[in-house]
Amino acid sequence: MTAYDDLMAFTRETEALKMISMRLGWDQETMMPRGAAQQRGEEMAAMESVLHARRSDPRVGDWLAAADPADPVAEAQLREIRRGFERATKVPATLARDLARLTSVAQGIWAEARSNEDVAAFLPTLAEVVKLRREEAAALSSGGNAYDALVQDYEPGSSGGEIAVIFDAMRPRLVALRAAILDKPVPPGLSGTFDPAVQMQVSNRLARAFDYDFTRGRIDKAVHPFSSGSGSDVRITTRTNPDDPFNCFYSTIHEVGHASYELAIDPAYAMTPLGQGVSMGVHESQSRIYENQIGRSRAFTSWMYAQARDAFGDLGLDDAQAFYMAANRVQNGYIRTEADEVQYNLHIMLRFDLERALVSGDLAVADLEAAWNDRFAADFGYAVDKPSHGMLQDVHWSVGLFGYFPTYALGNVYAGCLHQAMRKALPDLDSQLEQGDTSGATGWLKDNLQQHGGLYLPREVIEKASGAAPSEEPLLSYLEAKFTALYDL
Amino acid sequence: MTAYDDLMAFTRETEALKMISMRLGWDQETMMPRGAAQQRGEEMAAMESVLHARRSDPRVGDWLAAADPADPVAEAQLREIRRGFERATKVPATLARDLARLTSVAQGIWAEARSNEDVAAFLPTLAEVVKLRREEAAALSSGGNAYDALVQDYEPGSSGGEIAVIFDAMRPRLVALRAAILDKPVPPGLSGTFDPAVQMQVSNRLARAFDYDFTRGRIDKAVHPFSSGSGSDVRITTRTNPDDPFNCFYSTIHEVGHASYELAIDPAYAMTPLGQGVSMGVHESQSRIYENQIGRSRAFTSWMYAQARDAFGDLGLDDAQAFYMAANRVQNGYIRTEADEVQYNLHIMLRFDLERALVSGDLAVADLEAAWNDRFAADFGYAVDKPSHGMLQDVHWSVGLFGYFPTYALGNVYAGCLHQAMRKALPDLDSQLEQGDTSGATGWLKDNLQQHGGLYLPREVIEKASGAAPSEEPLLSYLEAKFTALYDL
Repeated sequence: MTAYDDLMAFTRETEALKMISMRLGWDQETMMPRGAAQQRGEEMAAMESVLHARRSDPRVGDWLAAADPADPVAEAQLREIRRGFERATKVPATLARDLARLTSVAQGIWAEARSNEDVAAFLPTLAEVVKLRREEAAALSSGGNAYDALVQDYEPGSSGGEIAVIFDAMRPRLVALRAAILDKPVPPGLSGTFDPAVQMQVSNRLARAFDYDFTRGRIDKAVHPFSSGSGSDVRITTRTNPDDPFNCFYSTIHEVGHASYELAIDPAYAMTPLGQGVSMGVHESQSRIYENQIGRSRAFTSWMYAQARDAFGDLGLDDAQAFYMAANRVQNGYIRTEADEVQYNLHIMLRFDLERALVSGDLAVADLEAAWNDRFAADFGYAVDKPSHGMLQDVHWSVGLFGYFPTYALGNVYAGCLHQAMRKALPDLDSQLEQGDTSGATGWLKDNLQQHGGLYLPREVIEKASGAAPSEEPLLSYLEAKFTALYDL
Repeated sequence: MTAYDDLMAFTRETEALKMISMRLGWDQETMMPRGAAQQRGEEMAAMESVLHARRSDPRVGDWLAAADPADPVAEAQLREIRRGFERATKVPATLARDLARLTSVAQGIWAEARSNEDVAAFLPTLAEVVKLRREEAAALSSGGNAYDALVQDYEPGSSGGEIAVIFDAMRPRLVALRAAILDKPVPPGLSGTFDPAVQMQVSNRLARAFDYDFTRGRIDKAVHPFSSGSGSDVRITTRTNPDDPFNCFYSTIHEVGHASYELAIDPAYAMTPLGQGVSMGVHESQSRIYENQIGRSRAFTSWMYAQARDAFGDLGLDDAQAFYMAANRVQNGYIRTEADEVQYNLHIMLRFDLERALVSGDLAVADLEAAWNDRFAADFGYAVDKPSHGMLQDVHWSVGLFGYFPTYALGNVYAGCLHQAMRKALPDLDSQLEQGDTSGATGWLKDNLQQHGGLYLPREVIEKASGAAPSEEPLLSYLEAKFTALYDL
């Protein structure tokens, strides 16, 4: 046994334990009896303590020092294992424990503050979260840029500066596109009440249309839809709202995108660091391209319209074109998670600029609400009416997820690049999608991107798949073309 | 922090990990996509390796040596932790690994042999399992009785000799009772087809009638019903057969008995070795008393009859007395798991005598089938017609569970003791049960037995609850009285 073999055997066991941890998270959101919450907390803490001990095990350092990679796959394995080991050893154990304890409490305080519209009740806790995450970032960056160190957790190889360049190029064109669209009348949505059980049946049909592998997954309901797991057990959740079946359908398609990425990774990488999606941004590119570029296309929605009428009868819409417009309505709104393709990225840019300033120290937590509301008014043209529509709307900051928000918009940018290349490679795509056949598109994504898992860094794998360095241009051109036609701008 | 405190902190974390392992087992039987089986095997192996390392951690030995128990609870904690530590350290790691590997394969070989009625295909594997378990027993018993060492895993403080005395006293009276009953005509059973969804609704009503706490549990379907978990997350499963709703109903009540024991344990013991049922025998006493002495009583079945008619309409039976007789039919049959209260223990005694002889070396694996068939003919009066009705019917031996079978009959014996004391304490029990109110019975069991968890050894806790040393006499008197009246003997 070489040092590399020993390291990989140890790592496989760690990865298996991580799978278990993810499965517990799934169980908690779907199956767990509500009286079990406190015990589950102890179980998760025990698991986390085992995982932390393994990640920072001194033997991993020794094996990393002695390991001699035989090929590019081994090199990539070592790169990922080293990243995890350095992260685990750079952060003092006391700080890691304090952060875990604080963020688990902070989430409840945030939830209560949000339901009471009480920013003041949340600020002391948020200040403490920012303080500890800044300490962690300082330990991780060893004197370098603190925010960049946090971004690396979610998007290896990326940086705040690089993201800022992309976002700065996007913002004026999105603001202009949004303004042009909102000058036009809002097209009608669906009307009626839609049986949740039937929504779930349609969800299952949609998941099958997107080639979700039910022998290695399942669909359940949860309050917030998610995808969970890697390898050969990747489960998704969706939700139903009797007034809004689009929420259910597009949540399902979005999560199928995440899950399909995991399920398509080369089985040779299973139970290793390469056996998972390489970053949050690349993951989001898959969920978004499934949901938007494919799922909200004119071609696919015409098939979906037939399915929906089949399931529900009258939808209160004239024809497939009206259904397409209903699935792509652009309206004023405060909430990121409910935003359309055009406005979504503006929500992200707002959060990105604010959290960067919080981490650098340029913005005090006490001034966050005013900064949020000013920026919102500037980009969206109207005032935030209450904190739950403003800075209290998202859970992320309460649990310390600084550096995470930009990966949502990066995902959209990557999806734009992939979509452009995919359309070039598949001239007949629309005629397939009109039949509800996504196999051309999903097959192209599997072959060109998904199968590689963590082998290549995010920018590398997007460049390999799309044939060009990642850029915001394809996304912006796609959005401008789509919505110019749709709204007759 | 004293040595005892350190030991308990470490132990709580180990227990939390054990909970996780149990939850994975539940998931595997209820929710897991079928394509995930191989990956799940790796996950379970990784978890088992973590647990084994913790159980045999040298620090546990040091803490045990230094710990000074302050009270009887601490003494009991140390007793249980010591038992686990000694078990984990006495068995050589290579032997433990070989056994785990062999039994995981052996189960599949047994299942195939059973479906092919091919004893010869199973014998070499069984011989290997017996050989390794004998080696393990030798390591555990340090020169003492090998079978006793195995029994201790499931029934601490018990022994093969002690069980043999009880069983020898039971066997002639059960054989005689069985013969007298079978001289009478078999009463009619239910006729009709029973919608599985409605069976599940009745199951839920029965679970509520037996005070199952749905805020800390749930009911799903599985091929083989089981209860899983401890503390505040104890889930059960049941099954449905359209021809036989009794199977579903009594599986549910049986598993509610197991689950309620776990859920009633003093919360102060949660996540410690005392926070679980003390032995397999005591556990089975709870499932059996719920299922049989309460669930199959004349009083409770009269309430259940009304529920069943409510749910299904006509059952093809005249009245509540006919329903009571149908729920207590005694018929010829080969299969242990389908046996009635009278014959069940005879099935166990057969297995007990044979497995004791296998472990002692008095019986060769090659002679097992003949020994089984001879003994079956002697006790039941007719010949085994095929191996799946004989020595291939149960999974236990393939996975090395020697010493486990007798705990099923011990559970019945304990249930007899508890039932006698409970009836004395609750003179109005039958009028409560006729209303579907089991709270008197389940409350008595919680107060007198269930709450103690692992605090007292099995014989101790039965004696505390019933007021007398465990004996087979109450069970035999109960069975003789019940079936003499029922069959008009």
